[in-house]
Amino acid sequence: MARVIIVYATDYGSTKKMAEAVAEGVNSVDGAEAVLKMAEETKINDLLAADALIFGSPVHMGSMDYRMKMLIDKVCSGLWMKDALTGKVGAVFTTGSGFGNSGGGAELTQLSMLSNFAELGLLLIPLPKNTPGYAKAGSQWGPHGRSADENLKPKGLNDDQLVAARHHGANVATVALKLGGPLAFAK
Amino acid sequence: MARVIIVYATDYGSTKKMAEAVAEGVNSVDGAEAVLKMAEETKINDLLAADALIFGSPVHMGSMDYRMKMLIDKVCSGLWMKDALTGKVGAVFTTGSGFGNSGGGAELTQLSMLSNFAELGLLLIPLPKNTPGYAKAGSQWGPHGRSADENLKPKGLNDDQLVAARHHGANVATVALKLGGPLAFAK
Amino acid sequence: MARVIIVYATDYGSTKKMAEAVAEGVNSVDGAEAVLKMAEETKINDLLAADALIFGSPVHMGSMDYRMKMLIDKVCSGLWMKDALTGKVGAVFTTGSGFGNSGGGAELTQLSMLSNFAELGLLLIPLPKNTPGYAKAGSQWGPHGRSADENLKPKGLNDDQLVAARHHGANVATVALKLGGPLAFAK
Amino acid sequence: MARVIIVYATDYGSTKKMAEAVAEGVNSVDGAEAVLKMAEETKINDLLAADALIFGSPVHMGSMDYRMKMLIDKVCSGLWMKDALTGKVGAVFTTGSGFGNSGGGAELTQLSMLSNFAELGLLLIPLPKNTPGYAKAGSQWGPHGRSADENLKPKGLNDDQLVAARHHGANVATVALKLGGPLAFAK
Repeated sequence: MARVIIVYATDYGSTKKMAEAVAEGVNSVDGAEAVLKMAEETKINDLLAADALIFGSPVHMGSMDYRMKMLIDKVCSGLWMKDALTGKVGAVFTTGSGFGNSGGGAELTQLSMLSNFAELGLLLIPLPKNTPGYAKAGSQWGPHGRSADENLKPKGLNDDQLVAARHHGANVATVALKLGGPLAFAK
Repeated sequence: MARVIIVYATDYGSTKKMAEAVAEGVNSVDGAEAVLKMAEETKINDLLAADALIFGSPVHMGSMDYRMKMLIDKVCSGLWMKDALTGKVGAVFTTGSGFGNSGGGAELTQLSMLSNFAELGLLLIPLPKNTPGYAKAGSQWGPHGRSADENLKPKGLNDDQLVAARHHGANVATVALKLGGPLAFAK
Repeated sequence: MARVIIVYATDYGSTKKMAEAVAEGVNSVDGAEAVLKMAEETKINDLLAADALIFGSPVHMGSMDYRMKMLIDKVCSGLWMKDALTGKVGAVFTTGSGFGNSGGGAELTQLSMLSNFAELGLLLIPLPKNTPGYAKAGSQWGPHGRSADENLKPKGLNDDQLVAARHHGANVATVALKLGGPLAFAK
Repeated sequence: MARVIIVYATDYGSTKKMAEAVAEGVNSVDGAEAVLKMAEETKINDLLAADALIFGSPVHMGSMDYRMKMLIDKVCSGLWMKDALTGKVGAVFTTGSGFGNSGGGAELTQLSMLSNFAELGLLLIPLPKNTPGYAKAGSQWGPHGRSADENLKPKGLNDDQLVAARHHGANVATVALKLGGPLAFAK
């Protein structure tokens, strides 16, 4: 049995929609269960109870939403101090507009959330290039859903993006099940 | 006349102390004036009135303090939309412990604040290698003050770190004066 | 008079084409002159003679082309040791496919070249959001030319990308002229 | 049985020494075997034959050694095209001086090598904070060995750095054994 928590912040609902697709992917794997939480409502025990953590954020000015950062500063940092999540599994996803046509800061945003997970001692799951939907919806660090076009006009997420998100959730669940509990690192 | 605003978040006072050293450096330059603000009290007009912006943050879990991020999401993003700060000058600094002895995420933290400034169209000022104090207090992206030792024991900032911070402030003021107002980029 | 050197590596010619557009932008500014060099043929004196440096690279596996890296390791590092370029001006651009639709590692690639420039003490010029062509051809760190579509099929650069590249070159030339020589940082 | 290849570039021997410590850590795990290769001599079949890949590089101007980048451009990119390493395990380490006292670009250097591994679809292994030696020898992304002091004077690696490197090797071997072959990601 693997429990995967998906934590997100959302402005107009796109990141929530991506989070739901990730959760569907988790739930599609036998023996895995997804829990969805908004950043503001996520507590220490929610993270402690999970075998894998997936964080999702809109890209704002080239970095993660401040609500995700507040959760990291107020909740994750205490768990870091206690080495409480070491050996679990982590992954990330983002959403943003297509303005500029090259991610608009998605890469540093994904990396700053992965940095939190690396600090916590989590195994990091990338998005393999042969994942369905990748061509329109991702980077090596995780799925990225464009919810607006190159001129900042909202257009909603497309199927490729949701398909990539679903596979990402399934991948994380698969790794967590394979590990069968937090990996015991050398001490 | 160049007005330089220094915005910071602080936990135990180290980042505030670095910010004050940066401000001293600004004020040491003829024709330059420093304004110090905490992230929580910084308003749109404070940023609009400045010729140069310097942001400073403690490193938390490998990224900037959530109060800095809240300011960026709530205030800077609106200025980005209007291209209101394009052609001004920007720079950053950080503080953190010496745990790990290799920055503890200072680089990505400095980059995420520089990313906000690049989005805003600011000229970015690095910390030149021959800056006094650099050997103990900096990276190419800006000064970094270690306020705790390798075992997380607080030890306060040392003179080298404050000297580097002062020079960083002076450098930013010098560039702002040289430009004599926001640079008019090609349109 | 400002001399701007544009150094690039190229595989199938797209980065060369972007470099030529950047050079056109430099030459469009009164009093500025562009010099174009491939990474392999760039010598210490080429960099020393320039007031501003612009580096361009294709994105390979999420980082810069090894020929650009060889130049940095063999030529730039010696100039770093001597603080020989401090106070000059630097900027970057990249090219890549549209695979994944979110930059494909362009951001870290641009940052690794900017990192070299920050180490050298250069003022870093971003790509302002209101630059013509930005919507289809850029990130905050510099222009990014997509030369293949989302499925890796070559399609050549489009006008927006070349327009953004031209403006980037003009911006760098304008800053270099405004400074009138390397900025004297505080010592 | 898990085979772990450790690939490195070295200038004066410090990165080689770190690589050897990583290999010792791998070999300390029952059922795991380390293979050590310099970047210049690493072939496609070396990477194909491995269950886990560990790349190590000195930090040069804030990014990886060009010999590592040449390997990535000439060998890894072909494996990326074929999805040949997807589901294997990856990790990194670096060496550098203590100049600046905050990593000197180690973080972006480690990330650029991890970026290559994420592109290849590898599970990424961080350095948990409670790893022995961490306090003097690491970041969240991997061990970092300081082989020179804050004033660039060579001083050799210390025991903490080699201890952290050994544990990193052991951790990677443990994950590879636990997976028992490349993870089958969802398709």
